[in-house]
Amino acid sequence: MTVIPPLEAPRAPQAARPHDALARLLADDLRAVEAVIAARMRSEAAPRIPQLAGHLIGAGGKRLRPMLVLASARMLGYGGPHHVHLAAVVEFIHSATLLHDDVVDESRQRRGRPTANLLWDNTSSVLVGDFLFARAFQLMVEAGSLRVLDVLATAAATIAEGEVLQLVAARDLSATEETYLRVARGKTAALFAAATEAGAVIAGAEAGAARALRDYGDALGVAFQIADDLLDLEGGAEIGKDRGDDLREGKMTLPVIRALACASPEERAFWARVVGRGEVGTGDVERAVAIMRGHGAIESARREAEGWAGRARAALEGLPAHPIRDVLRDLAAYVVARRA
Amino acid sequence: MTVIPPLEAPRAPQAARPHDALARLLADDLRAVEAVIAARMRSEAAPRIPQLAGHLIGAGGKRLRPMLVLASARMLGYGGPHHVHLAAVVEFIHSATLLHDDVVDESRQRRGRPTANLLWDNTSSVLVGDFLFARAFQLMVEAGSLRVLDVLATAAATIAEGEVLQLVAARDLSATEETYLRVARGKTAALFAAATEAGAVIAGAEAGAARALRDYGDALGVAFQIADDLLDLEGGAEIGKDRGDDLREGKMTLPVIRALACASPEERAFWARVVGRGEVGTGDVERAVAIMRGHGAIESARREAEGWAGRARAALEGLPAHPIRDVLRDLAAYVVARRA
Repeated sequence: MTVIPPLEAPRAPQAARPHDALARLLADDLRAVEAVIAARMRSEAAPRIPQLAGHLIGAGGKRLRPMLVLASARMLGYGGPHHVHLAAVVEFIHSATLLHDDVVDESRQRRGRPTANLLWDNTSSVLVGDFLFARAFQLMVEAGSLRVLDVLATAAATIAEGEVLQLVAARDLSATEETYLRVARGKTAALFAAATEAGAVIAGAEAGAARALRDYGDALGVAFQIADDLLDLEGGAEIGKDRGDDLREGKMTLPVIRALACASPEERAFWARVVGRGEVGTGDVERAVAIMRGHGAIESARREAEGWAGRARAALEGLPAHPIRDVLRDLAAYVVARRA
Repeated sequence: MTVIPPLEAPRAPQAARPHDALARLLADDLRAVEAVIAARMRSEAAPRIPQLAGHLIGAGGKRLRPMLVLASARMLGYGGPHHVHLAAVVEFIHSATLLHDDVVDESRQRRGRPTANLLWDNTSSVLVGDFLFARAFQLMVEAGSLRVLDVLATAAATIAEGEVLQLVAARDLSATEETYLRVARGKTAALFAAATEAGAVIAGAEAGAARALRDYGDALGVAFQIADDLLDLEGGAEIGKDRGDDLREGKMTLPVIRALACASPEERAFWARVVGRGEVGTGDVERAVAIMRGHGAIESARREAEGWAGRARAALEGLPAHPIRDVLRDLAAYVVARRA
C-alpha cells in the first residue's frame, strides 16, 4: 500500500495567539526583562514603592510594549544587552501612566485586581508613578544612546499631551474624529511607536528600517486603542475591568462620535445626558450599544481598526524576512480581534 | 592738606538679599531661561498645558534652582549655551513636583495664588506635571551630555523616593531624625545638588570641582528645607501659603521630632491628637509652637539649619575665587534667615 504524502508537510500547530508566539520566540529576553524590572523597582528608602508597583506590574499584563522593543531589535540582528533595558523602560513608562490614569479615571479594577489607588491611595499612586517614570529615564541613560533617549522622551511628552487632550475633550459632544485620533496616538500609539523605533535604533538600523518599524508601532497602537474602546463596550468579565467605564467617564470614542454624527433628536438627548452630563443609569450602557449598532457605528469602528492593522502590516513589507516579522504581521490582526 | 585714603576702597552697597545679587550677576542667562521655559511649555495639542503650567511658573517663585545651574556653570567659565537649557530643566522638574505635591497635600495656596488643583482639578495637575517632567527630559537630551542626564534622572528618582517616604512617615510619631534627613534630601536637596552638579559637569569641571559644587547644593538644600519647615510654623502672610499646613498634614519635621523626644505625657497626648490623628482645632498651631519653644526645639532646628549652611560654605572653599562664589557663600546664610 502506497502512502500518498500530503500536499504540504504538516505545519506545526499555529499558536492560538501571535502574542504567545512572540513570547516564545523572545522567551530568554523576556526573562531578562522581568529580572531588570524586579531589580529596578526596588527602593531601599521607600519599600512602599516596590509593593505598590509590584501589585500592578506583577499582575501580569501582556508585556506587549516590551516585546515590541525586543522584537524590533532581534529581527534586525541585535546581539544585546541594551534592548532588555529599553524593554524594561517602556514597561516602566507604561506602568507609570497606568497608575496615573487610574487616579485620573478613579478606576476600581485593572488586570482583574483592585487598582493601586483603591488599595493604597491616590497620592501613593501619583508618587510611585513618578518614581517609575524617573527610573525609566535612569535605565535609558544606562543604554547610552542619545537618539534612543530622544525617541523615548518625546514619546513621554506626547503621552502626557494625549492624556490632557482626552481630559479636555471628555463630555464634549462636538469632539471630532481628528481629536479622537490625536488622543489615541498620544495615549497609546506614541509608546508603541517609540518601542519599535527604540528597538530598531539600538540595533543600529538604517533610517528606512527604523522608520518602517516606527510606522508599524504607530499603526498597531491606533488599531489597539480602537479595539480597546470596543472591548469596553462589548467585553465581558475577561477584560479585567468594568464594562462601560469609558461611557461613564465621558470619553469621546470613535463609535460614540460616529453614532452622534447620525443621531436622531431623541438619541442626541440620550448622549447629552449619558456622555455629556455623566448621568448613567441602569440599562444605559446596553442602550448606548444598541444605538451605536443601529447606526453601524461599532462595525465601522472595527473596520477602522482593521484598516490601521492593515497599515501596520504594510509597514513591515520592506523589512528583511524573519520569523519575528511574520509574527508581528499576525499580531496586527490579533490586536483587533482580541477579546481581552 | 593731605587726604588720607581710607584703609579700604568703599565697597559697593551689599545687596539686601544674595538671591537678588545672584539674579543680577546672571541677568542675561535668566532672561534666556525664561524664554526657553515659555517656549517649551507650549503644547499645540493641548492648550490647557501652558495655561495650567503658566499659572504656576508665571507666579514667579525665586528661580533658585535654575540660578544654581547657571551659577555653577558660569563660575567655572562655561560659555554656553546648554546651561540655559539645563536651568529650564530643573525649573520644569521642580514645577512638576510642585503640581503633584499640591495634589498630594490638597494644598489651596502656592506663591500667594490659589493652587492649580483648586483652579482646574487634581487630574489636570497630575497630567500637566507628567508633561513638564517629560519636557524636562527632552530638554536635557538636547544638551547632549549622558553624564548630566544621569545626574538629573537619578535626582528625579530620589525626589520621588523622598516624597513616598514622607507620605509613609506622616503621622508616625516614631519617625526619627534619620528619616527626616532622608526625606529632606529627597524632596529638596536632591534637586539642589543635581542643579549645581549639572552646571559643573556641563562646564567640563574636573571631578573635584563637580563634587564640591554637588556637596554645596546638597547642604544648601537640607538647610533650605529645615528653614522651610520653620517658616511654616513661624511665617506670616508673606510665605504665600497657609501657616501650620505641615502640622495639619502630619509631616514629621525636625522641631516636631525633637519636641516629641522630650514630651511630657500630656504633650505626647497633644502630639498624638494633632499630628498623629490630624485633629487640629483652633489654637492648636499656636500651642504646638509654644510646646516646641518650651523645649528649645525650634531654636535647635534653626541651629541645625545653620550647621548645614556652614557645610555648604565649607564646600565652596576649594573652588577658585569668583564673584559668583562669594554670592553663593552669602546665599547659604540667606536660605536659613529668609522670611519667605
